[in-house]
Amino acid sequence: MSEAESHSELEDIPEAECRQLLGVHTLGRVAITVDGQPQIFPVNYAIDDRVIVFRTAPGTKLASAPMSAVAFEIDEYDAANLAGWSVMVQGVAHEVTDAIDKTSVAARRLPVSPVAPGEKEHWVAIYPGKVTGRRFRAQATPA
Amino acid sequence: MSEAESHSELEDIPEAECRQLLGVHTLGRVAITVDGQPQIFPVNYAIDDRVIVFRTAPGTKLASAPMSAVAFEIDEYDAANLAGWSVMVQGVAHEVTDAIDKTSVAARRLPVSPVAPGEKEHWVAIYPGKVTGRRFRAQATPA
Repeated sequence: MSEAESHSELEDIPEAECRQLLGVHTLGRVAITVDGQPQIFPVNYAIDDRVIVFRTAPGTKLASAPMSAVAFEIDEYDAANLAGWSVMVQGVAHEVTDAIDKTSVAARRLPVSPVAPGEKEHWVAIYPGKVTGRRFRAQATPA
Repeated sequence: MSEAESHSELEDIPEAECRQLLGVHTLGRVAITVDGQPQIFPVNYAIDDRVIVFRTAPGTKLASAPMSAVAFEIDEYDAANLAGWSVMVQGVAHEVTDAIDKTSVAARRLPVSPVAPGEKEHWVAIYPGKVTGRRFRAQATPA
């Protein structure tokens, strides 16, 4: 580890700011556990004040696992400035493709545009439990 | 979904190319399951022909969970070209901080430089099981 790195600062990101960061990005990653084995998938997502929503294909593990504990993560890293942040949501995923409750109907109106190809007919909403974030920036080492 | 998106192509990335992509990147994400709840952490990593290695702080879930099933993921997305790829490794994590077997000793010689601050005294090696990848690119819609 270099001197510069050893003088960097790590700070927690308050939950309100984590939600703000989630609101301005559109690409994240979902982790689910299938038969004890974690898996990670990149997804395009949208968020409102209640849920994170993404679309997936029929038959995927994500669509077939209602009420699953999941993690959702976004991050950004600025290599030039050795600075970065990450936000993680721990929550529960429900398929909301056909659900008629208000939250599900609202979730299906969110602008989710998967850039990966394939029929993504299933809508999955993540109900956030814990929302945490961390930011770090390397400090210049005093000469 | 726009016309352009609906005409994009999705292809599997052969394992050899997945390993090549893993070899030229340094920032990925690890998913572990703690008490049934998946969690995702960004990590700086290095890789040799046997293992993926990263460093972590004492007391973290990652250091205290030897022999855990984990997922490791890297991805890249080019917004201008609506193109992207992701590689996922499903494997088992072992702490190798003090291990004296050849693989562990070699793993600790890999150039892992965590940019996030904090004492990262523990070395964790991921022994890959399944290595998979996907690439997509939106096709121009015929006029």
